Amino acid sequence: MTGQYGLLSPLWAGTAAAADTSDEAVLLALLQVEAAWAETLAVAGAVPESSAAAIRTLWRRQQESSTAPFDAQVLAAAAPGGGNPVIPLVKLMRQTLASEGCSDSALHRGATSQDILDTALRLVIGQVSKDISRHAVRICDALAALADDHRHTLCVARSLTQHALPTTFGLRAAGWLDGVQQAIGALHTSLDSMPLQWGGAVGTRAALVDWQGSEDAHQLILDLATRLGLPAGRPWHSQRQPALRVASSLAGVLAALGKLAGDVLLLQRPEIGELRESAAPGRGGSSAMPHKQNPVQSVLIRSAANAAPNLLATMYAAASSAQDERPDGAWHAEWPALAELLRLAAGASQRAADLVSGLETFPEQMQKNLQSAGDVLLSERLALRLGPLLPGGSKALQTAVEQSVSSDLPLREILADLLRSAEPTGEREEALEELDGLLDPAGYLGHAEDLTDSVLADYQQNRSAWNE
Amino acid sequence: MTGQYGLLSPLWAGTAAAADTSDEAVLLALLQVEAAWAETLAVAGAVPESSAAAIRTLWRRQQESSTAPFDAQVLAAAAPGGGNPVIPLVKLMRQTLASEGCSDSALHRGATSQDILDTALRLVIGQVSKDISRHAVRICDALAALADDHRHTLCVARSLTQHALPTTFGLRAAGWLDGVQQAIGALHTSLDSMPLQWGGAVGTRAALVDWQGSEDAHQLILDLATRLGLPAGRPWHSQRQPALRVASSLAGVLAALGKLAGDVLLLQRPEIGELRESAAPGRGGSSAMPHKQNPVQSVLIRSAANAAPNLLATMYAAASSAQDERPDGAWHAEWPALAELLRLAAGASQRAADLVSGLETFPEQMQKNLQSAGDVLLSERLALRLGPLLPGGSKALQTAVEQSVSSDLPLREILADLLRSAEPTGEREEALEELDGLLDPAGYLGHAEDLTDSVLADYQQNRSAWNE
Amino acid sequence: MTGQYGLLSPLWAGTAAAADTSDEAVLLALLQVEAAWAETLAVAGAVPESSAAAIRTLWRRQQESSTAPFDAQVLAAAAPGGGNPVIPLVKLMRQTLASEGCSDSALHRGATSQDILDTALRLVIGQVSKDISRHAVRICDALAALADDHRHTLCVARSLTQHALPTTFGLRAAGWLDGVQQAIGALHTSLDSMPLQWGGAVGTRAALVDWQGSEDAHQLILDLATRLGLPAGRPWHSQRQPALRVASSLAGVLAALGKLAGDVLLLQRPEIGELRESAAPGRGGSSAMPHKQNPVQSVLIRSAANAAPNLLATMYAAASSAQDERPDGAWHAEWPALAELLRLAAGASQRAADLVSGLETFPEQMQKNLQSAGDVLLSERLALRLGPLLPGGSKALQTAVEQSVSSDLPLREILADLLRSAEPTGEREEALEELDGLLDPAGYLGHAEDLTDSVLADYQQNRSAWNE
Amino acid sequence: MTGQYGLLSPLWAGTAAAADTSDEAVLLALLQVEAAWAETLAVAGAVPESSAAAIRTLWRRQQESSTAPFDAQVLAAAAPGGGNPVIPLVKLMRQTLASEGCSDSALHRGATSQDILDTALRLVIGQVSKDISRHAVRICDALAALADDHRHTLCVARSLTQHALPTTFGLRAAGWLDGVQQAIGALHTSLDSMPLQWGGAVGTRAALVDWQGSEDAHQLILDLATRLGLPAGRPWHSQRQPALRVASSLAGVLAALGKLAGDVLLLQRPEIGELRESAAPGRGGSSAMPHKQNPVQSVLIRSAANAAPNLLATMYAAASSAQDERPDGAWHAEWPALAELLRLAAGASQRAADLVSGLETFPEQMQKNLQSAGDVLLSERLALRLGPLLPGGSKALQTAVEQSVSSDLPLREILADLLRSAEPTGEREEALEELDGLLDPAGYLGHAEDLTDSVLADYQQNRSAWNE
Repeated sequence: MTGQYGLLSPLWAGTAAAADTSDEAVLLALLQVEAAWAETLAVAGAVPESSAAAIRTLWRRQQESSTAPFDAQVLAAAAPGGGNPVIPLVKLMRQTLASEGCSDSALHRGATSQDILDTALRLVIGQVSKDISRHAVRICDALAALADDHRHTLCVARSLTQHALPTTFGLRAAGWLDGVQQAIGALHTSLDSMPLQWGGAVGTRAALVDWQGSEDAHQLILDLATRLGLPAGRPWHSQRQPALRVASSLAGVLAALGKLAGDVLLLQRPEIGELRESAAPGRGGSSAMPHKQNPVQSVLIRSAANAAPNLLATMYAAASSAQDERPDGAWHAEWPALAELLRLAAGASQRAADLVSGLETFPEQMQKNLQSAGDVLLSERLALRLGPLLPGGSKALQTAVEQSVSSDLPLREILADLLRSAEPTGEREEALEELDGLLDPAGYLGHAEDLTDSVLADYQQNRSAWNE
Repeated sequence: MTGQYGLLSPLWAGTAAAADTSDEAVLLALLQVEAAWAETLAVAGAVPESSAAAIRTLWRRQQESSTAPFDAQVLAAAAPGGGNPVIPLVKLMRQTLASEGCSDSALHRGATSQDILDTALRLVIGQVSKDISRHAVRICDALAALADDHRHTLCVARSLTQHALPTTFGLRAAGWLDGVQQAIGALHTSLDSMPLQWGGAVGTRAALVDWQGSEDAHQLILDLATRLGLPAGRPWHSQRQPALRVASSLAGVLAALGKLAGDVLLLQRPEIGELRESAAPGRGGSSAMPHKQNPVQSVLIRSAANAAPNLLATMYAAASSAQDERPDGAWHAEWPALAELLRLAAGASQRAADLVSGLETFPEQMQKNLQSAGDVLLSERLALRLGPLLPGGSKALQTAVEQSVSSDLPLREILADLLRSAEPTGEREEALEELDGLLDPAGYLGHAEDLTDSVLADYQQNRSAWNE
Repeated sequence: MTGQYGLLSPLWAGTAAAADTSDEAVLLALLQVEAAWAETLAVAGAVPESSAAAIRTLWRRQQESSTAPFDAQVLAAAAPGGGNPVIPLVKLMRQTLASEGCSDSALHRGATSQDILDTALRLVIGQVSKDISRHAVRICDALAALADDHRHTLCVARSLTQHALPTTFGLRAAGWLDGVQQAIGALHTSLDSMPLQWGGAVGTRAALVDWQGSEDAHQLILDLATRLGLPAGRPWHSQRQPALRVASSLAGVLAALGKLAGDVLLLQRPEIGELRESAAPGRGGSSAMPHKQNPVQSVLIRSAANAAPNLLATMYAAASSAQDERPDGAWHAEWPALAELLRLAAGASQRAADLVSGLETFPEQMQKNLQSAGDVLLSERLALRLGPLLPGGSKALQTAVEQSVSSDLPLREILADLLRSAEPTGEREEALEELDGLLDPAGYLGHAEDLTDSVLADYQQNRSAWNE
Repeated sequence: MTGQYGLLSPLWAGTAAAADTSDEAVLLALLQVEAAWAETLAVAGAVPESSAAAIRTLWRRQQESSTAPFDAQVLAAAAPGGGNPVIPLVKLMRQTLASEGCSDSALHRGATSQDILDTALRLVIGQVSKDISRHAVRICDALAALADDHRHTLCVARSLTQHALPTTFGLRAAGWLDGVQQAIGALHTSLDSMPLQWGGAVGTRAALVDWQGSEDAHQLILDLATRLGLPAGRPWHSQRQPALRVASSLAGVLAALGKLAGDVLLLQRPEIGELRESAAPGRGGSSAMPHKQNPVQSVLIRSAANAAPNLLATMYAAASSAQDERPDGAWHAEWPALAELLRLAAGASQRAADLVSGLETFPEQMQKNLQSAGDVLLSERLALRLGPLLPGGSKALQTAVEQSVSSDLPLREILADLLRSAEPTGEREEALEELDGLLDPAGYLGHAEDLTDSVLADYQQNRSAWNE
């Protein structure tokens, strides 16, 4: 009756990320951590194998809804009493084990609720990040293809909304690719330095050391990290830099995707028409207007990019106010913010992968928009090349540009007249001859292709690294 | 499999607000709006009564899970295609009506998906706000009782963490009350100016006017507003001031409660010990430490107050970028932010009502902390009263204070010595006699009681108004 | 050497708001509060008139840089020691008074630094709000004129970036006006409930009451409020709802202006061309491209709207964590956020007033964009009117629309063919005759003009109220 | 008249960072970039050496206020016209060069205003980051000394505000150190991947390549990077990941310092008394209360940590909406946010260095607070060790703990009674003998010392790396 499935969050509704960050998934991760710890202890001979096996069985059974011993919704409703869901879960686990005649002696030994929850969330982060990386490869592959295919497709570059100079659509796509690949790179780096959490009640691991001795305690934690596939490290109960790094990189992914979606939204406006989100059955229709095809993927990605910066701010504010050895509210504020960041980043990645894979390009319309800007688009070049040759210098060129803009007279003709009306010199005659060439946008692209290639080369390297 | 029930949000898990903002509740509100519109049209004779009745029946059936024609989770998964849940819902409603042999001629006539969703969310806001108000009365009643009961309970006032002057616990409680009552007042005001949304595809109501004529269209919208119990008004599809006002007031409620919870967290630290959250079975225990009783209600309220400002920022950022006649992502970013703000405000209100109702006070500990500050706590008064009489003036008093702070010699003795060692005057002798009185904290409370009464008087008025 | 004058904030650089919120202006406001209090006390006979006069003279002298006794930059550098600028200022004032042989007996009596600073910032807020209101009248007058002049100017309404239906430019302008007038109304309301701050060291006014007695103390504060032209009220040292209300309304102003600027930025894109920011000497040029005219006013307003939500979040976060009787950092975090919000709101208002006053409109281009959408723009109307008459019903109409979109065949012809090919009925013949009329955008504007008038009528009322 | 010097920002008022980010400093950086580019071109023979020298001279002259050709305040007031300060600056430079008879032929060749401003801000970032690193070494050295000195100083660890277990003050200090060192490490990494900006009008470098050819253009940009001491890289005009990485790391520094300051504020509350900010002349006094010594450094650091997350959010929101080849407001929103983040991070680092260097510790009070918690502080240990031995098991232990908490009876006595009253066994007798040892906090510190050493070892490595 009280669930949220994304009805108000179509960006991630129905995605793998929604499932991977659901309460059920978090519950499974909590059980996985308890089970892994019990097994780690059992392998070391510190607890009976049978108790560890019983705990592991609870986890396994939870993976099938028909055999699940625990109900995420019931557990959620019990979480307020403890301030976090681990406290009632451990209690329920003990009851279940007892009712089934199993020993709970391997359960939650020397751990604190924050150890379990932080480590479980670390597993969830790892899982969703794999999802993001998979989508990112699709995004980047598609963008790389666009960059490569359109390395010679001319279009108008816009600056502060206005037509500025020619560029290529290939470079534009390469720019999007560059943003995404940098963001994904940062995500991977941040995961590498986000360890499991294992500090005991106040970060000293006192109970564990008291029980197993200092060296064995160390080894057990290393074993647990190995078993969970996570980096080991010092406790970070109230020193939250690892969480900040990951959250920043998730927000960075959303910033890169938001930039991309914003550009697509502009470029597919009917008056611009350079791009179009592919239509698909059941996507983009309007409830009132039969003719409309809405760019819903871009719209949803943009909505996610709008929300992400403020979720990140919540993470930083929480970290700043994480007092004492374990915090009094700051830690609790992180969970929903982090979970939503994960859903947004993965959901937006999935939408973006679909968006970019199906993106329709309209090179003729790009060409048309470029031409509509007229010769003045090359005015920067003309100022440098012809400025010195005109009577009146670059001031005369500026006047010519303004005249062209206000009169619709082609700049080429105005300039030709000016050159012809001036005292003839060799340079001026040469300029007159070169005028058409100077006004060819294809000849004024600078490093567009080099930069495109440079981004593509980086991606070649990154793609291999991500797949490792 | 993919639901969220608050496992990571214990602040609101299991509360009425969780239910009232669940996907199921939003779905019901969407159906209610469609049903109310169909009925409005039917009453006016614009559509067949039977079609309106069929739509109403869908809504009624949805209220019982056993008869519900629609599944919120399925609908959520379909929402991405349309960018919002109304588009697939209307489609499903048509299919259902058709399969049941009913006419859909009264369905969604002249409306756009934003009309339905904004109005449905307005209903949800109204519902949750009632919940908040109900909790607020409990909070304020309890705070008013504390303010009244403790109008003479002395405690130390703290400024920049340090002991500053005496005050009363009654005034402290009155301050909390004042914050909450101002915030609730603002919430009520903001609701009064948040109308239903009814603008049609682009805010002109063209389809409706085309169909029913201009005047009848006006009247139909007024009738709909009446039927839904909402204010009428102009469309606000991409002019979002009404949403900003409500969101600001919700964040204001959380700011007032966050201030309260933060103070409680401080004042119940073991070293301070002036207050204690009541314990309850299943609340506040630790997973590792048998002796601990955690102030979980305050902790959870504080975590909500940490998140609220950034959800509010998302609302403002969205409003700022709500382009065109209907926005391309900004509107979509509002929904989850607003829904979470509602959950946080209502959840925190419920926790705060429990917290304040059961708050244990320790006047003896307040007295002890006050005394531990020593005579120097009255140094402000002494500076004004005795400064002029001391040889060396207020500088001498400052020296005396520093001497007392560093030596643990009571200030009273140092000052008495100073007065005695100076040339005797009438004023000095009088001062010596008054010294004990001057150092009595109970005599240096200024307007503490007046201000307490003033807050209580305001609340008397507000309480009646809220209940209307 | 260390000043900021807006080099990185061109939105407000050089505006009146920059001056009104400068350190010099804050310093003057601090002096004004100290002087007003001294005079209030002197009028009541509580302090010597001569001391009050000396303090007033310091304030007056500070208003001329040639006679200013204090240097804002020096004071700023001294502020860290006290945590706020009032502490070193009062010390400097005492020194200055002493060095000039004047009594400081009227200085800062019974006040605390937060009383002075909050009240001074309240004065600054009042001053800047007057500035905002003045600009708002210019904005709203210009928008009202646009709304009125263009009540019949057709243009295309856009939804999720796509062409949706016809509307009028008048209604679009009225929408902008409505956002601004609602925001300004909220600003005025918030000012009315933001009192001076006068609570003494911990909000009890103990020193003042101890000195002047309870009733006289009340009266003195009322007198001070009157003298400063501010509402009186209870202290709000650590209960910051009044600051939140004002900050929210400032952010609301920026949201309304950001929406306006965003629309202008879109509508003046070369491909759309419906609007243009007026050029002016020295405005909008590019450092590289002679032909470019940048919409710098809109760009700067948008940049302000981007920053405002997060400054507001800082205010709410601060209020939530304002602990004790006076806060340990939260209060300090408010000042720069509030001052920047003031600068942004006033700077954006000034730019917007210039922008809107000079906004060039291109009705022919609006018409052209409207026509480019073709007949399908009326498809909503056709679906309602013709759907029932077509063989195949509204499904046939949807097919016709899709055929028209994909083939560039005018929808009118497709529909005419369909109607003609169907079995002839009276309704179908009538429909055939009405077809041209149905496809006339001017006949499908719904309440566009009514809503425009409604906004204009509200503004008539508001404008009078604002000028009172 | 309109400057800001930090009167409302005592955190950074008067610091080196205030100077390094002042408008004057930004102006100098802008000139430095223009000069370096002119020189780069001159060395390559592309422009006359004399023109480059003249530009360099302008920069050099600006470094002395007596010879400065440009006025930052005047320039700021001119910035709105161009939307950024580079446009009027280049114009002023041309005028100045012309008036002095110098050629401007080396000025701003092939560059766009964003190249100059982004690169100048990159220089400012580099400069302020050096400042931050210098302070960080002081902070970390002091924290390392505290961690080392207090590795055996017992204190009570707090969790959710309540006494939890024993720990050492050394480990607490090591935790602060760990946060700061991780944050500084991230800052260094982010600087390494934030290149100069050199893309020309739309990121293609068209003008430069057109003029100098593709390969030479590449080389010139590498030369410029070398000359400025910056990494080279592709343009990032509207792909802002580099700026996000740096901004995140600055906010990370503030989060680490905010955590530290928050703990200090708590631990120096009079009732806790474990730490004290050192007093200094002119620091921490109150304007009303002679006895007060305010922890102003911590308060100011905390105020900065409050603001930082939202400035970071502005950076991410801007990056997400950086449209086209060059953005229409998003870029402009970055500057003040980034500059303020720099000031806050550097100012907070400076205050924290002073704070930590002079921090007074009170081990006796730490001991006293630890003891006040009583034997129950070891209840976790007792539950594990004695639980199995008690009749009734761990439930009996929980009852004993509750009895002790509610009755003030020492837990040790209750447990001894329980053990004695139970059937005697060898284990129980042993437990009785060990009871005193089990209740010794010094024996229950887990890895506290190991973890302290581990942090210190990391810092040894980091410190060397930072100094390189």
